[in-house]
Amino acid sequence: MTHVSIIGSGNMGQAISSVVARGGNTVELFNSTDKDKPVTGDVVILAVPYPAIDQVLADRADQLSGKVVVDITNPLNFETFDSLVVPADGSAAAELAEKLPDSKVLKAFNTTFAATVASGQVGEVPTTVLIAGDDADAKAQFAGIVSAGGLKAVDAGPLKRARELEAVGFLQLTLAVGEKVAWTGGFGLV
Amino acid sequence: MTHVSIIGSGNMGQAISSVVARGGNTVELFNSTDKDKPVTGDVVILAVPYPAIDQVLADRADQLSGKVVVDITNPLNFETFDSLVVPADGSAAAELAEKLPDSKVLKAFNTTFAATVASGQVGEVPTTVLIAGDDADAKAQFAGIVSAGGLKAVDAGPLKRARELEAVGFLQLTLAVGEKVAWTGGFGLV
Repeated sequence: MTHVSIIGSGNMGQAISSVVARGGNTVELFNSTDKDKPVTGDVVILAVPYPAIDQVLADRADQLSGKVVVDITNPLNFETFDSLVVPADGSAAAELAEKLPDSKVLKAFNTTFAATVASGQVGEVPTTVLIAGDDADAKAQFAGIVSAGGLKAVDAGPLKRARELEAVGFLQLTLAVGEKVAWTGGFGLV
Repeated sequence: MTHVSIIGSGNMGQAISSVVARGGNTVELFNSTDKDKPVTGDVVILAVPYPAIDQVLADRADQLSGKVVVDITNPLNFETFDSLVVPADGSAAAELAEKLPDSKVLKAFNTTFAATVASGQVGEVPTTVLIAGDDADAKAQFAGIVSAGGLKAVDAGPLKRARELEAVGFLQLTLAVGEKVAWTGGFGLV
């Protein structure tokens, strides 16, 4: 059993919390008023929007040392919905890994809309969580948590592949905003 | 009815040729021995691997002037399968558009494995062709050809979105090579 901390209690945080609990793992969910409560999980999921990451690090970087830290963000320019705000050859996950050298950073859950995490379905297709990271043990541990909770987990490669995962997340968001796909759908992996 | 030229008679060229013909449009398929035969289609699909594009342009750039030109390539480093060979902030399609200023360049069919073009199915999901481009009429014309042939066509945005389409294509190829998805599957849009 793994104890999982989820920072951020929005749609994604809540949906992931249900998945974790369903798999028989324990979960603590932090909302924005829990700033002074330290995280106690061995796996910490940062379920906040990309612009809020720096504040989380300012508040909690020391608490994340040694832990598996999961970045789920899509670093879009949310005003234009027409570009990412991270360097073209980088990713939000790579930035996070640089800021947390003593954590094992994973990218996951950025290509799954909240409704598809909650339902376990992308349309008629079982929801797959793509996981990228450089620490094989951390990836396997997180994949186990995801699959115990009823979703499919697929190893998407090293952390540098977060660049492609964030491109998928970005494209999928533009398709949803443009009403080309529903928020209950998107890219299903089959 | 549109007359479509497809340069490249590999798996993708053949599969796309069948789609075009099925939709009641006419198609001419060029293989590598047809170098001296000029293209006559109003829409020209470059169904060759990325490294072969420059030779096609050397042979035929003047023939492509004024036409809709469709780039289906995934510009991977095929030795390492670990990176793209185009600039991080660019795409193969953007390069092509720069080299063909008098053509209307579209990106399409780079996120669909040949088997899914041929069968019309990504696993159990109908195959969707994502189309990016800056010329709305060209996009609509090509979407019409694709949908007449029995596949779904979705407007993925301006040609700059080819960067994300190529990231999807790259990621999908790494997942297939890593046996995480079958060549009859991949990302289905639902």
